[in-house]
Amino acid sequence: MRAAEMIELWRGGRRESLHLGHAVICDSTGVLEAWGNPSEVIFPRSSCKMVQALPLLESGAADAAGLTDRQLALACASHNGAHIHVEAVDRWLTTLDLQETDLRCGCHMPKDPDENRRLTCSDHKPDQRHNNCSGKHAGFLTLNRHLGGGPEYVDPEHPVQQAAKAAFEEVTGETSPGYGIDGCSAPNHACSLTGLASAMARFAKPGGDRRGQAMQRLVAAMRTHPEMVAGEGRACTTLMRAMQGKVAVKTGAEGVFVAILPEQGLGIALKALDGATRASEAAIIALLLHLDVLDKDNPVVSTYLTGPIRNWRGTVTGEMRTAPGFPD
Amino acid sequence: MRAAEMIELWRGGRRESLHLGHAVICDSTGVLEAWGNPSEVIFPRSSCKMVQALPLLESGAADAAGLTDRQLALACASHNGAHIHVEAVDRWLTTLDLQETDLRCGCHMPKDPDENRRLTCSDHKPDQRHNNCSGKHAGFLTLNRHLGGGPEYVDPEHPVQQAAKAAFEEVTGETSPGYGIDGCSAPNHACSLTGLASAMARFAKPGGDRRGQAMQRLVAAMRTHPEMVAGEGRACTTLMRAMQGKVAVKTGAEGVFVAILPEQGLGIALKALDGATRASEAAIIALLLHLDVLDKDNPVVSTYLTGPIRNWRGTVTGEMRTAPGFPD
Repeated sequence: MRAAEMIELWRGGRRESLHLGHAVICDSTGVLEAWGNPSEVIFPRSSCKMVQALPLLESGAADAAGLTDRQLALACASHNGAHIHVEAVDRWLTTLDLQETDLRCGCHMPKDPDENRRLTCSDHKPDQRHNNCSGKHAGFLTLNRHLGGGPEYVDPEHPVQQAAKAAFEEVTGETSPGYGIDGCSAPNHACSLTGLASAMARFAKPGGDRRGQAMQRLVAAMRTHPEMVAGEGRACTTLMRAMQGKVAVKTGAEGVFVAILPEQGLGIALKALDGATRASEAAIIALLLHLDVLDKDNPVVSTYLTGPIRNWRGTVTGEMRTAPGFPD
Repeated sequence: MRAAEMIELWRGGRRESLHLGHAVICDSTGVLEAWGNPSEVIFPRSSCKMVQALPLLESGAADAAGLTDRQLALACASHNGAHIHVEAVDRWLTTLDLQETDLRCGCHMPKDPDENRRLTCSDHKPDQRHNNCSGKHAGFLTLNRHLGGGPEYVDPEHPVQQAAKAAFEEVTGETSPGYGIDGCSAPNHACSLTGLASAMARFAKPGGDRRGQAMQRLVAAMRTHPEMVAGEGRACTTLMRAMQGKVAVKTGAEGVFVAILPEQGLGIALKALDGATRASEAAIIALLLHLDVLDKDNPVVSTYLTGPIRNWRGTVTGEMRTAPGFPD
């Protein structure tokens, strides 16, 4: 099945660009709605961080380390390296008696404008705490302390990654056909879009067992601390706030977005074929509108989807639209 | 005709993302090769700046103002707002007895790292000279001085834009079906991809008439001053240098790229359906390799196309590839 037409960009009364993609909505029984190919195998990238965090809770490592919900939200984050994130990772590492050099995520400049400016103008370089995945890695280190593994915790054969893989395969209900190495050096296992949406549906309607309790706590952490999951001005944070914390959402690199809808017991997963973030952000908004969990008048809708596109002088030059049939 | 599969991103032995698009190679007689739909109507955006600059020369305005080839290259530029570009626009405006406020392109932060940092860390805001299109607009103002038009030179009905439209329709050989307003507020006329590639073929093999002379001078200016057309580290500059100035290339927003090949008498035009710059840059490299005007061992090939993708720790995580059949 081919990718579906998802998001269009218009200029001068003409469609200028088009994003194709795949999207699936699941409940606990399976696929409810799909656009494109629900069986498309993708790398979830950072969209599955709440899955990768399951062993942290299920093993007892989180409780042993006394992790707060704010820290659990950070473990599920792709944050923008603002002061609140960097400081939280720093304190977390200190409580583990570890340091920045124990991380294995690598360094990049933070997207947070203030922290970026501070580093740029003081001639400082970012360190691994600024990496958008540093919270996930602090979680990995916490689990590692509990499991007693070696320092190279991003090795696919390492007990931390084996635990993450097992959880991933169980909640997606699939044997992963393989993994890629993510931007932060951790393995990222592939699954079908249906598998990813099913996993999100499980998070939306967790059972009463140990796994269910872990899912419930992670979703609650994300919904309660949206600022820790991404940062000011970022889609995940803005969108969770716009829905008053009723829905948890998470972006992933190369055009992935997922949503967990506890009240409806639904999970969403989507992938823009071309990997564009502007497409995945617009598409998740379209699906949340479709499911009536986001108010069409909420400012976030015009920010990421319907709002006019303006040029450097403020002139309206075009607009984004959902393609005909996405969603109906 | 559907868009063709053009550029793929691979990770972990699996195709992670895919860019579709349309591409056409023309000579003076018409289409030689095409991928996707050669009749696709697109907005050329900044890729047609050398077309928009034709009236500047043909009217005699450029000679009357004593413009240098360096200035003509800047008139065809999407520059990164480095000091050399901002200073050149500033001096150009001064010779016209005009100032920054006479520009109508709007302000945005420059992409040049040094100038960006200078502004950021000194709490200065960018002005219109930093706009990547300020050279084109200095050209518009020069033509306007010659034509005696009013100050709102970006109005589609203004003599400057009427002259640009006439030149555009003549060199594309098409009646434009309409225009959009570009990021810099100037009208941008739509044409087919074949029309755009044909225009580039005309630039590649210009006649001896006034238009031909103008084309020849603009192409020579771009080839001789690649640093003025974009800037250090930018694809257009790097690519023209990599081909020792034998080929002129120009990018346009939303995934457009064109090339002018004087030795072969060929023109290329391509558009990534999704508007991605990474796709248009990789695709133009693929076509230049296909036409044997770019050495496959040139570093630019790995930078923009074949080179491994590395993560924040330097680990190879994937690669870009041309899709099967693009080009053969």
